[in-house]
Amino acid sequence: MKRIYLDHSATTHVDARVLDVMLPYFSEKFGNASSLHSFGLEAAEALSSSREQIAAALGAEPQEIIFTSGGTESDNMAIKGAAYMCSSRGRHIITSIIEHPAVLRTCEQLEREGFEVTYVPVDNEGILNMQLLEDSIREDTILISIMHANNEIGTIQPIKEISELIEGRRIVLHTDAVQSVGKIRVDVNELGVHMLSISSHKLHGPKGVGALYLRSGVNILPLVQGGGHERGLRPGTENIPGIVGFAKAMTIVREQLEEDSRHMQHLRDSMICNIRSRIPYARLNGHEEKRLPNNVNMSFRHVEGESLLMLLDMKGVAVSTGSACSSKSQKASHVLTAIDPGVDYIHGSLRFTLGRENTMEEIDIAVDHLEEAVMKLRQMSPFEEEK
Amino acid sequence: MKRIYLDHSATTHVDARVLDVMLPYFSEKFGNASSLHSFGLEAAEALSSSREQIAAALGAEPQEIIFTSGGTESDNMAIKGAAYMCSSRGRHIITSIIEHPAVLRTCEQLEREGFEVTYVPVDNEGILNMQLLEDSIREDTILISIMHANNEIGTIQPIKEISELIEGRRIVLHTDAVQSVGKIRVDVNELGVHMLSISSHKLHGPKGVGALYLRSGVNILPLVQGGGHERGLRPGTENIPGIVGFAKAMTIVREQLEEDSRHMQHLRDSMICNIRSRIPYARLNGHEEKRLPNNVNMSFRHVEGESLLMLLDMKGVAVSTGSACSSKSQKASHVLTAIDPGVDYIHGSLRFTLGRENTMEEIDIAVDHLEEAVMKLRQMSPFEEEK
Repeated sequence: MKRIYLDHSATTHVDARVLDVMLPYFSEKFGNASSLHSFGLEAAEALSSSREQIAAALGAEPQEIIFTSGGTESDNMAIKGAAYMCSSRGRHIITSIIEHPAVLRTCEQLEREGFEVTYVPVDNEGILNMQLLEDSIREDTILISIMHANNEIGTIQPIKEISELIEGRRIVLHTDAVQSVGKIRVDVNELGVHMLSISSHKLHGPKGVGALYLRSGVNILPLVQGGGHERGLRPGTENIPGIVGFAKAMTIVREQLEEDSRHMQHLRDSMICNIRSRIPYARLNGHEEKRLPNNVNMSFRHVEGESLLMLLDMKGVAVSTGSACSSKSQKASHVLTAIDPGVDYIHGSLRFTLGRENTMEEIDIAVDHLEEAVMKLRQMSPFEEEK
Repeated sequence: MKRIYLDHSATTHVDARVLDVMLPYFSEKFGNASSLHSFGLEAAEALSSSREQIAAALGAEPQEIIFTSGGTESDNMAIKGAAYMCSSRGRHIITSIIEHPAVLRTCEQLEREGFEVTYVPVDNEGILNMQLLEDSIREDTILISIMHANNEIGTIQPIKEISELIEGRRIVLHTDAVQSVGKIRVDVNELGVHMLSISSHKLHGPKGVGALYLRSGVNILPLVQGGGHERGLRPGTENIPGIVGFAKAMTIVREQLEEDSRHMQHLRDSMICNIRSRIPYARLNGHEEKRLPNNVNMSFRHVEGESLLMLLDMKGVAVSTGSACSSKSQKASHVLTAIDPGVDYIHGSLRFTLGRENTMEEIDIAVDHLEEAVMKLRQMSPFEEEK
């Protein structure tokens, strides 16, 4: 059975071009970038050129890129690092209620350490309430962390507006861009952020590597101590093959983003349209336009998302009910709860996240299987029988 | 020019057998281990079987293995995690003056946070002073962190004796075993430790992955918040290809350690013997017997280690002056300072760290080049001319 992967927000396969550039760094070019001999120099050069490539793809300067082990570490580093650095000025942080757990759990940890956190709500399309955000800013606010695009429903938040709102204030602005890079244009200067988190494995790079963009002049405290790597901000022998692959993945994004984005959006719109026309009582979660070009998150009345997922998996179609990160817990997603699709819908949500290599044929097959699965489950639902 | 790599304590190349098992996890088996569909299950199975392999190689249980991004993170996690967890019972920590920066800088950070740290000295062969260690234990001592083997001079510390010393006390024992695993037998029960840090790239596995062994029943606080990965202790999408490679590297270590160790020790002893017979005023740093089978650290009177390194590099021989982690700073190594080889020797040290694939022919060529380089530099030395 040919499998169809529609869960690209969970992770992606490594692009063949990416793996190609990584391979020499496992074998003949395996040096430690801190070593002074020729093996070390090769590694140091790869590190430096990777940093340049990633910076270029984000509109940043190379020295503004700090390599990490992934998005979760980048988020922790940004939020705690800025909070600890600025704690003498204030201890108030603002975030949203639909952030990724890497942001929410980190904020909760800071609350346990004496910081105060305001969790700004979103409207029923998942867009941040800008008025409430503005109202929550205080004299002692030191940090705002709002995700660029949501990992479940794909809504794109008004980061640029936030950066304009706080201009002239001493508030550090962080955005978790783990889901947006590779799907929409992400330029740190256009967004006006001080810190931005990215993850390689969400954009056809390898797992275990990510980065934090840290604007020059913005200081944070490191979370980990050790050797002097990454300007002392993130010690540990650099994962050169991973970093080289990440850089190649970012370069590919830079080169073909427009085309890929258009392709994914075409598939997305066709998929939403087909589902709506073929499956009654299906609702799109999130915003119609302000959403990632690869995100289709829909709720189906009177069915269980997890049962849908299992039926689709049996047909070889890989999807998610929410985010992979919390898929093994049984709680209703905090994001869906925030936008409240209604009691008959909230447990029947599925997330399809498309990739640049998906085809229209795959989407059509997936919708066929989806329609069949929804009908089958509805026939078994006691709620449907009442009608 | 064929290059000869004698810097295996800095990093190692990925074994071809390791890379082979990693490759499918970059491409067709690329799933997120938290996903519920077939791609996710493949990844979760790989994660689980890797955990078993690594546990088996250390004499541990699978649930006692927590994957991290490497040795530095494991050390930070162990030391801070235990310190924060036990801080209500006491705030005194004991370590040694010759630990890796990942331990020393972490302890210094904890001092800034109100913990007290005793740094136990070593004798002039680099072995921990057990009497001073014992004398430094107090009622409020919560944690002892002593490295298993030193990264610069290869001395092996009496971890088992320490664990016997503290038996029955409520003190957590951590050891940084980053340099010992793959060179000598490492069994967590024989050593009697509660926590043990390892790094994949030091033993022919990939960079960017490591583990912390955490004995069942010992609790620590996580340093990073996010999804529930690794029992909530280390969130972030698991680096499956890296973990699979790490597990294979550990399995190879388990299978061929005795043979590899004997081979490296034979090369080591021959190298030390040849250097001593051919180069006058050369001293071995560290202990003659209680040292890693792959470590040759020697000081040469009246020469600069860095100049030696450069001359050898021009001949294709890759060595280190101390650890790669601090090679770009110009300070004399804290380890050499601690064992004090003498003012005429301290700046003339070189570390050769052998690998299982090195040959006697390579060692002989390296010693030829070394002899030539030492003679050349001594001819230029004003101190030598005085004689």
